[in-house]
Amino acid sequence: MNNTLDINANRRATNYSRPEMARRILWSAGQWLFRLSPRPCFAWRSLVLRCFGARIGRHVHFYPSSRVFFPWNLIVGDWTAVGEEVLIYNPGVVTIGAKATISHRAHLCAGTHDYRQPHLPLLKPPISIGDQSWICADAFIGPGVTVGEGAIVGARAVAVGDVEPWTVVAGNPACFVKSRKLE
Amino acid sequence: MNNTLDINANRRATNYSRPEMARRILWSAGQWLFRLSPRPCFAWRSLVLRCFGARIGRHVHFYPSSRVFFPWNLIVGDWTAVGEEVLIYNPGVVTIGAKATISHRAHLCAGTHDYRQPHLPLLKPPISIGDQSWICADAFIGPGVTVGEGAIVGARAVAVGDVEPWTVVAGNPACFVKSRKLE
Amino acid sequence: MNNTLDINANRRATNYSRPEMARRILWSAGQWLFRLSPRPCFAWRSLVLRCFGARIGRHVHFYPSSRVFFPWNLIVGDWTAVGEEVLIYNPGVVTIGAKATISHRAHLCAGTHDYRQPHLPLLKPPISIGDQSWICADAFIGPGVTVGEGAIVGARAVAVGDVEPWTVVAGNPACFVKSRKLE
Repeated sequence: MNNTLDINANRRATNYSRPEMARRILWSAGQWLFRLSPRPCFAWRSLVLRCFGARIGRHVHFYPSSRVFFPWNLIVGDWTAVGEEVLIYNPGVVTIGAKATISHRAHLCAGTHDYRQPHLPLLKPPISIGDQSWICADAFIGPGVTVGEGAIVGARAVAVGDVEPWTVVAGNPACFVKSRKLE
Repeated sequence: MNNTLDINANRRATNYSRPEMARRILWSAGQWLFRLSPRPCFAWRSLVLRCFGARIGRHVHFYPSSRVFFPWNLIVGDWTAVGEEVLIYNPGVVTIGAKATISHRAHLCAGTHDYRQPHLPLLKPPISIGDQSWICADAFIGPGVTVGEGAIVGARAVAVGDVEPWTVVAGNPACFVKSRKLE
Repeated sequence: MNNTLDINANRRATNYSRPEMARRILWSAGQWLFRLSPRPCFAWRSLVLRCFGARIGRHVHFYPSSRVFFPWNLIVGDWTAVGEEVLIYNPGVVTIGAKATISHRAHLCAGTHDYRQPHLPLLKPPISIGDQSWICADAFIGPGVTVGEGAIVGARAVAVGDVEPWTVVAGNPACFVKSRKLE
């Protein structure tokens, strides 16, 4: 019924440039400067990420068990927090605005494969998380998704499409629940 | 369209009393008595939790990779089991009845934020899990939820509302599937 | 309304034969040969799994943070990849075909309990994952499920029923989204 996959071609593909491969090797060691740091050392972890190419604003709080795959593909605005065991898988660029909250165990997944091609080429669609938004515990943000300003992606919600500003979404797949208003 | 968040106020808020802060620091070290204990040492782990203020019944089985954020906010009945990599995030009190089973990687999340307030105050709605219930692998129990006696929350189900006794729920959000009857 | 559970009987049940218990104890130590190996040592990790009874094909890529509970209940075809932090919980046999991709944090769960019986006996329904299929990041495959050849179970999808060959499913519970065709 179908052609067959060519996994050998998939593995031989050059998904990352030579400089990026060098960075990855450095980061595989350097990430321990981040992961082993004591919990209150938020400024230190922002500094470590910046040393590996991330653009991190002021007063940003990364928790030590959060994980960033490729710091050089990460942009974070002022006063944002990234909680425990958050996974930022970012072959594509992940941009998080200011005053955003990414709660524990959330997963931002900025990579996928073109499954129509026999060699399953790696795709790197960027993710954008708006200012003042809240990605709740265990939520999942899929490749290419834009979460609007002030939006809330509920606990365990799975956002595979864009989320409108100042709305609350929930469920798998995530659907509109209500508007959000600040008092 | 909206006022803006005040993350500085959020961070300056006193979410925990001084004695609780002292307990948290002690537990950040003491939890290793729990996490590093050999798998068969169930009585030891119950003892460790009790030393940090938990009320744990008899014949309770906590697996070493399960994680309790605040033992002093935990009550567990006799003959209950808490499986591998279960996460009990309990700024609010989590009460688990007797003969309940919490399967691997389930997440009981007794904390949230009031997202209508600019400083996102921490809320601590309690969770109650009934006797003889089963929270299946990877399931999520949201803040303020009561799971009735004998109820089953299916694998990966996301319970954000109360679950009726002796019913089975599944999906995200979790919905009624059928009644449960013991033979 | 109901009889009550007999957790003592549940714990006294003989779920595993003596030889299997011996294997489990050996594997609890031997798994570190797998988990602590450097990322590029794919052939080594296949060898470790084979030493503990798994049938692993050629050119298979297991990442070091993936986890197999019972290697002797695992069969994997050629050119298949099992990504980071994948959990293969396999009291029942898990069979994965050739050229399949199991992405990071997916969970194959081949065990459950008969919740109609007071002693909650352990059940071990096998899982079968077809050739050329793709189990995406964070997806969940439930006990007894067959995923057909070339099928795609989307990110965070929860498959509790069989998945037809060359189809794409998503959501919780997972539903048909579209057909898959290779170009």
